[in-house]
Amino acid sequence: MGATDRMHMVNSFDPHAGVNLGQRASALIERRQRVLGAPYRLFYERPVEVSRGEGALLFDPDGADYLDAYNNVPVVGHANARVRAAVSDQLGRVNTHTRYLTDEIVDYSERLVSLFPDHLEQVVFACTGSEAVDLALRIAAHVTGGSGIVITANAYHGTTQASAAVSPSLGPNNTLPSHVATVAAPDPLRDPADDGTAAALFAQRVEEAIRQLESRGVTFSALIVDSVLSSDGLVTHPTGVLGPAVDVARRHGGLYIADEVQPGFGRLGSTWWGFTRHSVAPDLVVLGKPMGNGLPISAVVGRRDLMEAFGRDVRYFNTFGGTPVSIAAATAVLDEIESRDLRANAASVGAALREGLHDISDRDPRLGQARGEGLFLGVEFVQPADTDEHLPDARLANRVVNGLREKRVLVSASGRYENVLKIRPPLVFTRAHADRLLTALDEVLTETSSSGGETSGHHR
Amino acid sequence: MGATDRMHMVNSFDPHAGVNLGQRASALIERRQRVLGAPYRLFYERPVEVSRGEGALLFDPDGADYLDAYNNVPVVGHANARVRAAVSDQLGRVNTHTRYLTDEIVDYSERLVSLFPDHLEQVVFACTGSEAVDLALRIAAHVTGGSGIVITANAYHGTTQASAAVSPSLGPNNTLPSHVATVAAPDPLRDPADDGTAAALFAQRVEEAIRQLESRGVTFSALIVDSVLSSDGLVTHPTGVLGPAVDVARRHGGLYIADEVQPGFGRLGSTWWGFTRHSVAPDLVVLGKPMGNGLPISAVVGRRDLMEAFGRDVRYFNTFGGTPVSIAAATAVLDEIESRDLRANAASVGAALREGLHDISDRDPRLGQARGEGLFLGVEFVQPADTDEHLPDARLANRVVNGLREKRVLVSASGRYENVLKIRPPLVFTRAHADRLLTALDEVLTETSSSGGETSGHHR
Repeated sequence: MGATDRMHMVNSFDPHAGVNLGQRASALIERRQRVLGAPYRLFYERPVEVSRGEGALLFDPDGADYLDAYNNVPVVGHANARVRAAVSDQLGRVNTHTRYLTDEIVDYSERLVSLFPDHLEQVVFACTGSEAVDLALRIAAHVTGGSGIVITANAYHGTTQASAAVSPSLGPNNTLPSHVATVAAPDPLRDPADDGTAAALFAQRVEEAIRQLESRGVTFSALIVDSVLSSDGLVTHPTGVLGPAVDVARRHGGLYIADEVQPGFGRLGSTWWGFTRHSVAPDLVVLGKPMGNGLPISAVVGRRDLMEAFGRDVRYFNTFGGTPVSIAAATAVLDEIESRDLRANAASVGAALREGLHDISDRDPRLGQARGEGLFLGVEFVQPADTDEHLPDARLANRVVNGLREKRVLVSASGRYENVLKIRPPLVFTRAHADRLLTALDEVLTETSSSGGETSGHHR
Repeated sequence: MGATDRMHMVNSFDPHAGVNLGQRASALIERRQRVLGAPYRLFYERPVEVSRGEGALLFDPDGADYLDAYNNVPVVGHANARVRAAVSDQLGRVNTHTRYLTDEIVDYSERLVSLFPDHLEQVVFACTGSEAVDLALRIAAHVTGGSGIVITANAYHGTTQASAAVSPSLGPNNTLPSHVATVAAPDPLRDPADDGTAAALFAQRVEEAIRQLESRGVTFSALIVDSVLSSDGLVTHPTGVLGPAVDVARRHGGLYIADEVQPGFGRLGSTWWGFTRHSVAPDLVVLGKPMGNGLPISAVVGRRDLMEAFGRDVRYFNTFGGTPVSIAAATAVLDEIESRDLRANAASVGAALREGLHDISDRDPRLGQARGEGLFLGVEFVQPADTDEHLPDARLANRVVNGLREKRVLVSASGRYENVLKIRPPLVFTRAHADRLLTALDEVLTETSSSGGETSGHHR
């Protein structure tokens, strides 16, 4: 780790590592460091230069193709033609804020809420998942009169001050304020095999966290959970695991906010939203990343009574939230998901990919578990041992991430122990793409096996 | 005001006022209320329906043209062809986040910082002004170790939790936390005529506010000021008025953050940025609204040492911040401003418009003052009297705003007393547009004069 880098990040380029990147990339990185500096971290030991994209592929300036198995924002594919046409068309007409009357936002809003359970009837638009989380927390605080938030131990919910305050995965320098309490996420590899026990355990932790807040004099306001616990290492099963915890939150007068920024919009195949799989009813739902295929649009969908209470008392206006251009992009995204049946594609390609990962993990004890749902999959690396300790192997995860990058397959790692391969491609991912990923992973694992302790990884 | 509307907003539509809007608009508003609800307020007693735009004009579905003298977001004009082509072109190539290497963000960043004084060398991108303010406050807190913020009494800086906390103009229900202290803004109509006194008075208030924070046990972190005090009623003169206050902030170990979301990008004609006119050197500058002509892009430009200190210790990553598409829009905006010499246009058309406003105010004592710079102008309405009390007349401001809307000229009102007409058109505003606005204003003033106390205004 570079001397000036006091903050660790999974899968980040270290400008001080002295890796040879070629003249063009080195010169660009140098200019970038000067004007963008420390806040701007690149992925990979050898960063990827991107000049073009198409579907699930990205291309570098030399024309080499990279399989994008990581980015959920271009959910209907890089350089999607329908999104492009919709945005271009609307830019040729008008793009005002929402204090003038326009059709588009009303049409889209009705269509969006129709994808949710009946009790979620209204929507407020913003631009980023962070803004939507920030707003959801404000709504919760307003209607409950409390500020206390319960989150999972390695949660990520955003980068505004209020959303970073509920994002411990941002690292140890991101100190959590006293109105925030954390609970260990369910751990599908290490929890008791009995599903009911995992759910009860999680509910018990939430109860303890609420009591902890109360003992600090903080009134409980909301439990906010990413419906697949992405940054906690991807927990898609058991599906009932959130239910009892939500009941606990309600009993203590708090709301349940479902963060669907990562799982939402059909990624899980079987359902539009992650919370649906848990048979729980959120009070507020936060949407983001894939919503506009890269155009900045996000939203809070919620109960009418909550939205009205907040909207009557507090003035909220987001200049760029729900503008006709962002709505045009979001509409095109729904059109693409529905007309190309991308949820079914996520289900079938995801199942094939997961099967392939299971095959590999059956053969290689370093893969402690392959899991996931639809096109959101994780592979947890552990140190092989005769015991059941499942000791995490973040070093191996990092080597695999960078090994795959050298084979032009893009993924990253996440999780509490940073040892979970994060596979989250655009929903236009095909069987052939899945095969390419599996073949590359097999090769990388063989190579890392033969090279033994030798590694280029510099992370812990 | 409607029974359910417990929160006043300048120039807002009251769905309970029973104004006849025609079947189409009424039906659309009803659907809108159902799915978007209370948080979504429309402008005007009779809302404006918008289906198309071009330059400084907006068109309703019947093809009637409205002169847009209010919106600063479409800075280079509604449906700008260059922005559209740039966005469309980039959407056809690729639109990834900033953790891969791309040229565009580096090229634009270098160009952007070259428009600032030498000591402001680095930039971080976000999507909205709110996010940029939120980030600037986080940077300030991190490098100063304090959380205390001093703002003006009717400031508006954003809608995230942290930026709403420094936005008293959001109304009485937006309670300010104890780490925020307010100062009365300079008042060009009521302050002593001597420029030095106004500056000294403002500095003294800032000093008192910092001491007030210290007495609460809060360490001072930053003074944040909109460089033309837009929501405090538009204060463009005297130009030296901020200097001594900034010195006070520095002496107390705090930063000075210039909020350029409204004045920035050449609106003032003579300078790119509002702070330049005050000969003060900000530590951080916040950019937003016009930056991408409606594409959501914002930024913090700042001192390298501050950015590096924050970036080394705190992980900040904004998924949609600085993506190639938003950068393409922002690049096209700079191209348009420069190639069409829109700053010079803002200066000359703005001067003509201001002169016309002065002519009217010379004739009509209800216009207490017409002021501004470039294409950011304000007209302060007062109750005519023999005294020098300058009693504000918000009711008249509201009648003029709605009267102009009936003549299809769009402006709004703002200021501490809600009595200042806010004229802030796209920079493609022409002399002919200025004449149209002046003629309409003259007519409205004549009409409101003859109708005496009779008014359709329902606001206080």
